[in-house]
Amino acid sequence: MLLHVLFLIAIAAEAMSAALVAGRREMDWLGVCVLACVTALGGGTLRDVLLGRHPLSWIEHPYYLVIVLVAALATALIAPIAKRLRTSFLVLDAIGLVVFTVIGCDIAQGLGLHWIVILVSGMVTGTFGGVLRDVLCTQIPLLFRKELYASVSLVTGALYMAAPHLGIQHGVGLVVAMVVGFVLRMLAIRYHWEMPKFVYRDDWD
Amino acid sequence: MLLHVLFLIAIAAEAMSAALVAGRREMDWLGVCVLACVTALGGGTLRDVLLGRHPLSWIEHPYYLVIVLVAALATALIAPIAKRLRTSFLVLDAIGLVVFTVIGCDIAQGLGLHWIVILVSGMVTGTFGGVLRDVLCTQIPLLFRKELYASVSLVTGALYMAAPHLGIQHGVGLVVAMVVGFVLRMLAIRYHWEMPKFVYRDDWD
Amino acid sequence: MLLHVLFLIAIAAEAMSAALVAGRREMDWLGVCVLACVTALGGGTLRDVLLGRHPLSWIEHPYYLVIVLVAALATALIAPIAKRLRTSFLVLDAIGLVVFTVIGCDIAQGLGLHWIVILVSGMVTGTFGGVLRDVLCTQIPLLFRKELYASVSLVTGALYMAAPHLGIQHGVGLVVAMVVGFVLRMLAIRYHWEMPKFVYRDDWD
Repeated sequence: MLLHVLFLIAIAAEAMSAALVAGRREMDWLGVCVLACVTALGGGTLRDVLLGRHPLSWIEHPYYLVIVLVAALATALIAPIAKRLRTSFLVLDAIGLVVFTVIGCDIAQGLGLHWIVILVSGMVTGTFGGVLRDVLCTQIPLLFRKELYASVSLVTGALYMAAPHLGIQHGVGLVVAMVVGFVLRMLAIRYHWEMPKFVYRDDWD
Repeated sequence: MLLHVLFLIAIAAEAMSAALVAGRREMDWLGVCVLACVTALGGGTLRDVLLGRHPLSWIEHPYYLVIVLVAALATALIAPIAKRLRTSFLVLDAIGLVVFTVIGCDIAQGLGLHWIVILVSGMVTGTFGGVLRDVLCTQIPLLFRKELYASVSLVTGALYMAAPHLGIQHGVGLVVAMVVGFVLRMLAIRYHWEMPKFVYRDDWD
Repeated sequence: MLLHVLFLIAIAAEAMSAALVAGRREMDWLGVCVLACVTALGGGTLRDVLLGRHPLSWIEHPYYLVIVLVAALATALIAPIAKRLRTSFLVLDAIGLVVFTVIGCDIAQGLGLHWIVILVSGMVTGTFGGVLRDVLCTQIPLLFRKELYASVSLVTGALYMAAPHLGIQHGVGLVVAMVVGFVLRMLAIRYHWEMPKFVYRDDWD
C-alpha cells in the first residue's frame, strides 16, 4: 500500500537528517545510529506508549531498524563527498512529516478517540522524533522556534480528518492532506514563513 | 469534588507558568501550546506510563487539553500588559504542586502499592511536568537546584499517607497535607529556604 | 543467583556515579537522589515501557529504590574525604554496563523477540540510564562521543546471544560475555579507544 511505502521512505529520510545533525556534533558512528533510530522511530514510539499500543512497530517489524541504520550510515559515508544534500533532505524530511502525521491520525482514529486526541496523535507522530533528537543534542527543539513545522502537521491532520465529512473519499483525502501539507512546508522554508512569537521578559513584571 | 476542581485549577496554573517560560525563550505560539501541555499534563502522563495505567487522563478527557491551551494562550495574550504576574503564578504553581502530589499518591495507593512507590508516584506527578519543561528548554531542572520544591511534594505526600494512621479522616488529612505543603512552599520562596547542596569537584580525587 | 547479586551491585554503582555527576553540578540532596534513581533504574524502566512489561521492577521490588538512595547519599557523604573515587567508580560502572546489558538481552530473549530487538533491549538497559542522566544535566550524552561504551554493550550482548549457538552452556556464556565486555571497557578507558567519528560541516554543501 502507498502509505506503507511512504512510511519506509519517511523513516529513511528522518534517519538521514538525524545523521547530518549527529555529524555536526561530531558523534561517533554508534551515536549516529542511536540518534537516527530515536529520530526516525521516536515519534511513533512515543505515540504508541501514550496510547498503550503494544508491541511497538519496530519490535514487531525489526527491519524498520535495519532501514534506519542503513540510511544513517550511508548518509555518514557519502556526506563528505556530496554537495546539495541539504535541499534533498529538506524535501525528504517534509515527506516524513506529512506521512507520519497522517499515520498518527489514522491510528488514533482507528481507536475511536476524540478529534483533539487524533490531532495530537498526528502531531506527536510527525514531530516528536525531531523533538527527541534535539533534546539529545541539548538544543531547544526547532519545532518551537522555526518555520511552520508543527503547524504543517496540524493542517495536514485537520484536512485528513475533515475529508470524509466533506464527502471526499478516504484515499483521496489522504493524498490531498499530504500534498497540501508538503507544499505548505516547502513554501514555509522557501519564504521563511514563521508563526508569530511570544516574547516575554521578566522586567515587564 | 474538591480535588477535581483543584486539579483543573492546577493544570491551568501549570500551563500559565509554562507559557511564561516559553515567552522568555521567544517560542512561537504553537511552541507555547506544546510546552504548556507537556508541563501541565506531563507529570501525570509519566506516572500513568510508569504504572501502566491506560487510557491516559487527557486521552479519556480531552477537555483537559482545552483548558491547558486556553490558559496558555490567554497568558501569552495578557502577559505584555499585566504587571505582578509572577507572584500570582507562584501561588498557582504551589497549588498545582500540592494538588498533583496528593492525586499521584492517591492513585498509587488505590493500586495497593508500597509506600515508597506511593511517595514516588506523588513526586513524579507533582514535579516531573516541570522537569520535562526544563529539559525541553535545555536547562538543568530547577527541581534539582532551587527552593524546596520536590521536598514540599515529599512532605505533602508523607502527611497525606500518615493521616489515616493517626486516626485522621481521609478528607481532613487531604486538606491538611495540601495546606501544610502550600504554606511550606510559600515560606520557602519568601525566605529562600534551600536544601543543602552537594558540591563535588574532580580535583578532590 | 549470581546475576541478581550483580544487578544489585550494578544499581548501587550507577547511583554512585550519578551522585558524583550531581555534585559537579551542585545539585541539592534531593536532586542527587532523583538523578541517582533515574540513572540506576532509568535504562531498565525505559526497556520495560518499550516492551510493555508491567509492573516495573522497582515498583514490584521497592527495595531497589532504597539501595539506590543509600548508595547515592553515602557517596555524597564520603566524596569530599575520599581520594581515588574515580577509579573505583569506573570499575563499578563497567560492571553495571555489562550486567544491565546481559539482563536486558535475557528479558527480550525470554519474550521470543528478534535478535536485533534483543541487542537493542540490551543496549537500552545498559546505556540509557546514563543517557537520561546526561539529558537531565543538559549535556550531550557521553554515550555518543566517548570511549567505547555502547559498543561494549553491543559486543557483550552479541556474545551472550551467540554462546548457545556455539554449544556453550548458558551460564558459561553469560559469564564469558560479561568478562569480555568488562575487560574491553577497561582497556578502552585505559588506552582511550574510541569509535571513529562522523564529522559533518554545513559548508561542505
